[in-house]
Amino acid sequence: MKLVTFEIHSRLGHHRRLGALVDERIVDLTTAYATFLAQRTDEPTPRELAQLRTPPDLIGWLRGQHKSREAAEQAVAFARDLPAGALGLDEGRISFDRDEVHLLAPLPRPNSLRDFSIFEEHMTRREGGGIPKRPTWFRYPPYYKGNPDSIIGPEDAIPYPYYTGKLDLELEIGIIVGRGGRNLSVEQAKQAIAGYTILIDCSARDRGETEFLGPTKAKDWATVLGPCMVTADEIDEGNLACRITVDGEVWFEGSTSAPRSFLAHHLVAYASDNETLQPGDLLGTGTVSYSCSVDLHRWPQVGQTVRFDVEGIGSLEHKIVAGEHVVDHVRNGLDGLLQAPREAVTA
Amino acid sequence: MKLVTFEIHSRLGHHRRLGALVDERIVDLTTAYATFLAQRTDEPTPRELAQLRTPPDLIGWLRGQHKSREAAEQAVAFARDLPAGALGLDEGRISFDRDEVHLLAPLPRPNSLRDFSIFEEHMTRREGGGIPKRPTWFRYPPYYKGNPDSIIGPEDAIPYPYYTGKLDLELEIGIIVGRGGRNLSVEQAKQAIAGYTILIDCSARDRGETEFLGPTKAKDWATVLGPCMVTADEIDEGNLACRITVDGEVWFEGSTSAPRSFLAHHLVAYASDNETLQPGDLLGTGTVSYSCSVDLHRWPQVGQTVRFDVEGIGSLEHKIVAGEHVVDHVRNGLDGLLQAPREAVTA
Repeated sequence: MKLVTFEIHSRLGHHRRLGALVDERIVDLTTAYATFLAQRTDEPTPRELAQLRTPPDLIGWLRGQHKSREAAEQAVAFARDLPAGALGLDEGRISFDRDEVHLLAPLPRPNSLRDFSIFEEHMTRREGGGIPKRPTWFRYPPYYKGNPDSIIGPEDAIPYPYYTGKLDLELEIGIIVGRGGRNLSVEQAKQAIAGYTILIDCSARDRGETEFLGPTKAKDWATVLGPCMVTADEIDEGNLACRITVDGEVWFEGSTSAPRSFLAHHLVAYASDNETLQPGDLLGTGTVSYSCSVDLHRWPQVGQTVRFDVEGIGSLEHKIVAGEHVVDHVRNGLDGLLQAPREAVTA
Repeated sequence: MKLVTFEIHSRLGHHRRLGALVDERIVDLTTAYATFLAQRTDEPTPRELAQLRTPPDLIGWLRGQHKSREAAEQAVAFARDLPAGALGLDEGRISFDRDEVHLLAPLPRPNSLRDFSIFEEHMTRREGGGIPKRPTWFRYPPYYKGNPDSIIGPEDAIPYPYYTGKLDLELEIGIIVGRGGRNLSVEQAKQAIAGYTILIDCSARDRGETEFLGPTKAKDWATVLGPCMVTADEIDEGNLACRITVDGEVWFEGSTSAPRSFLAHHLVAYASDNETLQPGDLLGTGTVSYSCSVDLHRWPQVGQTVRFDVEGIGSLEHKIVAGEHVVDHVRNGLDGLLQAPREAVTA
C-alpha cells in the first residue's frame, strides 16, 4: 500500500488528508472508510470510527498499527470498484485525481530524524574529506540527527542557501517507524518499520566542513520526503533501482543493493538501544553510493530541475531556487561577539 | 514567574498539570485562572477560556504568548491571597504543597533540542580530546542536536548506561523558545526566549570519542531538565552562580558569567537562520566551564547523589543508578553485520 498526505483547498480553507494511491487515483482514506462502514457494516458511528482508524494524518494512522492497516485495506478495496468522482458519506469525494490535490510530504513533520551513513563506497572512497575511514562503521552505524521541522514535500522547490556554494542533493531511503519501542532486537526492529519513502538529504558541503559537533546549518534547512510511504511488505529496501536526472540528463543510475554495512532494521534496532522510538520517527539510510555530488563531482545549480526515481516508491522532481537571505548569521557570524576580537577570526 | 509541570494522581488516574511556584506552593494555573474568571469577571465560559489561556501543558501555554502570560499572572495574584488547601471551580484545588505532587520536567517533551558549546575554557583547555581548537567558535556557535524524547525530570534517577565507563553530567542553562520565528535578528531573538531551566547534558564520554557525525549514543539516552522554567524577565542568564555537589561534597562552584563567546539570544538568532523555530524548542548553552568531569577529572559513580544548584532557577538532586542492559547493540555491535567480517573490526 502507498500512502500519501495531501491538501484539498475548499471555500472553508485548506484541509490536510491521508490518502492511498490506487490506479493513478488518490483514495481519501477517512472518507472512504467512513463510507465503507456506513454502507457495508452495521457500525452505528462510522464517522467517529473512521477518525480513529483512518485519521487524516500519517502519524495518527501509524499509531493505530494493524487496526488502522486493516481499515485502510478495507477502504481501498471498497473504493477501487467505484467510478472516479464517486461521492461517499456526507457527499464527500471518495477519491481524487492527482491534479486535483496538493501533495505534501507523506510525513510532513516526523517525530524525529536520524540520518545514518551505511553505504560503503560513499564513506570510504572520499579523499581529503573531513571523515576518516573507521572500522567501527561496520559494527556501529554512524548517524547524525536532522531537523524534522524543515521537511519539504513533492511540490516544493529546493532552496539553495545563501551560505553555500556546494549544494549537494543526496539520494537516500527514508525508513518510517510505525510501532516504536525500546531496546528492540534486530528481529523486533523488522516489525517496527511501517514503510519507506524517498529521502533527499540536502547538504551544504562547504559549510559542513566547518561544523565539528555534527552537521547543523549544513543540513538543517531542508530535507525532502516523498512522494509516498510504501508499506514495508511491498518492497525490499535493500534492492531498489535508483536514478537521478538533472534537466533531463542522467547523472546517476544505481541500486540500494550497493555494498552497505547494514539493512534498515539493523538501523532501527541500533537506534532503539537505550532510547524509545516513537511512531513517526524517521531514519535515513545515508546516501546510496555515487548518488550525490561529492561522489559524482557534478554540482546542481539554481534554475536546474532534479528528478529522483526509486523503484517501488516513485519519483520526485524539484526545481532548485535561490534561498532566502535575510540575516546572514551563518556567513558573516554574529554581531554579538563577546570575547574574541572579530579580527582574530581567521577561519 | 517560575513554571512547573506536575502530575496529580487521583482515582481517575494521573493528570498532567501546569503550575506556578508561589511561596513554596504550586498554584494549579488552569484551575486558578478558571476560578479567577468565574469569581472576579463576567466571563461566561471560564473553564473553556482557562483551557485556552492556561492549558495544562507548557508548550500550549507558550503558544499563547502575552495573553497566556497575563492570564498566569492574574491566576497567581488571585491564588496568592487564598489559604493553602482552598478549593476553586468544581471544587478543584487552587494550589498544592510540593510533597503532594509528582514533579516532571518543566518541558517534558521539547519540540527539539539544540545543544551548543560556548564556554571558552571548557572548549579550549581540553588536551588530547577529540575537539581541535577552532577560531570559528567565536563567530559561529557550534552545536549538536539532542534527543527530545529522552527527557528526565527532577524526581527521576539518572541511568548510567551499560556502554560507558565515563558518565559525565554537564551543567548547562536550558533556553526555552516561546514565540518562535525565522531569520531572527539578535534583537528579535531576545523577544523569542520565554525562559530558562537547568539542563544537565548526560554524556558517555568514552562513547563520544567513537562517534564522528556528532554525538548519538553518547548523549541521547538522557537529558535532565528542571526544576522549573523561570521566565526570561526574572534572571540574567549570563550571570548566575552555579554549584555541583556529589554526596554532599562540593565538586564545582562557578558562574554562567565565565568567559563565553555568546549570550542566549545570540544562539537563538543563529539557530533561526534559514530554520523556523517553534514554541517549545530547547537550546542548551553548553557546559559552564569546569562544571563537568572532563574539566574536573572526577567522575560520578552509580549509587552517588549529585546535586545541581543554579541561582535564580533552583536545585536538582539525582541519584545515579545502573542503566538497563538488554540488547547490547552499542557495546557489542550488531549481529546483522553484512559486509565486513567481524574479526576485521579492530576499534
